[in-house]
Amino acid sequence: MQKSAQTQFPIHTLMQERWSPRAFAIDVVKKETLQSLLKAARWAASCFNEQPWGFLVATKQQEGEHTKMLTCLAEANQHWAKHAPVLMITVAKLTFAHNGKPNRHAFHDIGLAVGNLVLQATDLGLGVHQMAGIFPDVAKSLYNIPENHEAVTGLAIGYMGDPQSLSDELRERESAQRTRHPLSHFVFTEQWGQSAPLTT
Amino acid sequence: MQKSAQTQFPIHTLMQERWSPRAFAIDVVKKETLQSLLKAARWAASCFNEQPWGFLVATKQQEGEHTKMLTCLAEANQHWAKHAPVLMITVAKLTFAHNGKPNRHAFHDIGLAVGNLVLQATDLGLGVHQMAGIFPDVAKSLYNIPENHEAVTGLAIGYMGDPQSLSDELRERESAQRTRHPLSHFVFTEQWGQSAPLTT
Repeated sequence: MQKSAQTQFPIHTLMQERWSPRAFAIDVVKKETLQSLLKAARWAASCFNEQPWGFLVATKQQEGEHTKMLTCLAEANQHWAKHAPVLMITVAKLTFAHNGKPNRHAFHDIGLAVGNLVLQATDLGLGVHQMAGIFPDVAKSLYNIPENHEAVTGLAIGYMGDPQSLSDELRERESAQRTRHPLSHFVFTEQWGQSAPLTT
Repeated sequence: MQKSAQTQFPIHTLMQERWSPRAFAIDVVKKETLQSLLKAARWAASCFNEQPWGFLVATKQQEGEHTKMLTCLAEANQHWAKHAPVLMITVAKLTFAHNGKPNRHAFHDIGLAVGNLVLQATDLGLGVHQMAGIFPDVAKSLYNIPENHEAVTGLAIGYMGDPQSLSDELRERESAQRTRHPLSHFVFTEQWGQSAPLTT
């Protein structure tokens, strides 16, 4: 299934083709492939080149670990994410190494890193479903995530599966068109709320 | 100048070639090009599809506006960013539209959107320098950014310029190799701090 973004201006294929699947194939994701995903994340920009990101990884081959990571996800996500061959939890380091002060951009920079990971996955034919619905405190305790660090998102990763494997409700969401606000809604000039000429 | 990431595993060219220049050419960035950048940002994923991002835009053609936006940047950034043909300030909406509650992932999702924007720019031959060094309160007041919203980063955008145009110190940073921690530093399994087998 493809869900290309319907876009008036040309954007790169990777971003056009990326979407967040819930149905995954059982195919194993090879070690080298996962390495590419994480290397892509690694090369993201970050404030002071702090690289405030951490990734906890569990594959289906590590059965106990996969089940453990599932318990960090909201129940609604567990239902479908349990079939994903790879799960990850992203973790932000909230303070700077060079001075111990709060890093206001820690979550932002996780977004940059995960954005890279997701597009690298798209390029390799994989799907990634990012989940905000996680239990950060459960993750913190289960994985001994240190002070000044916080679990940010969960990632379900794998090759695209058959939407027929999903419940009726999820299958409907799986096949729904991707929608976004128009540029005039969020691109402004001179003042907040004043649409920039380039949005028309 | 190219600063390809030195990477052991293959990652997509866009991510390999992206870096953060400080020297910009005077060439104007066309409206259609900026539209592509913002459309790429638009198609990022976000928690509850909230799309919590806003972009304030000022081009060199809007002289007064360009100068106004510069005053939102830390002085160290103003020195070189004043030559960038396009400046942007990214803004996060910190609460959800559907229930008014805090959006823990607002900054994270700005990162996803900006990540797309930057790779789209790379694809079109442009460079983007993201700046954490901004004055959010100055931006809030100058642009009447509403309550529950916060300026996150500045972006300097343009075609690559001549590093010789920079001061000695900045020219040195401009030509320095990009460096990142090894995977074993931030990819863990079972417990925080336990490097995953795939990092070797």
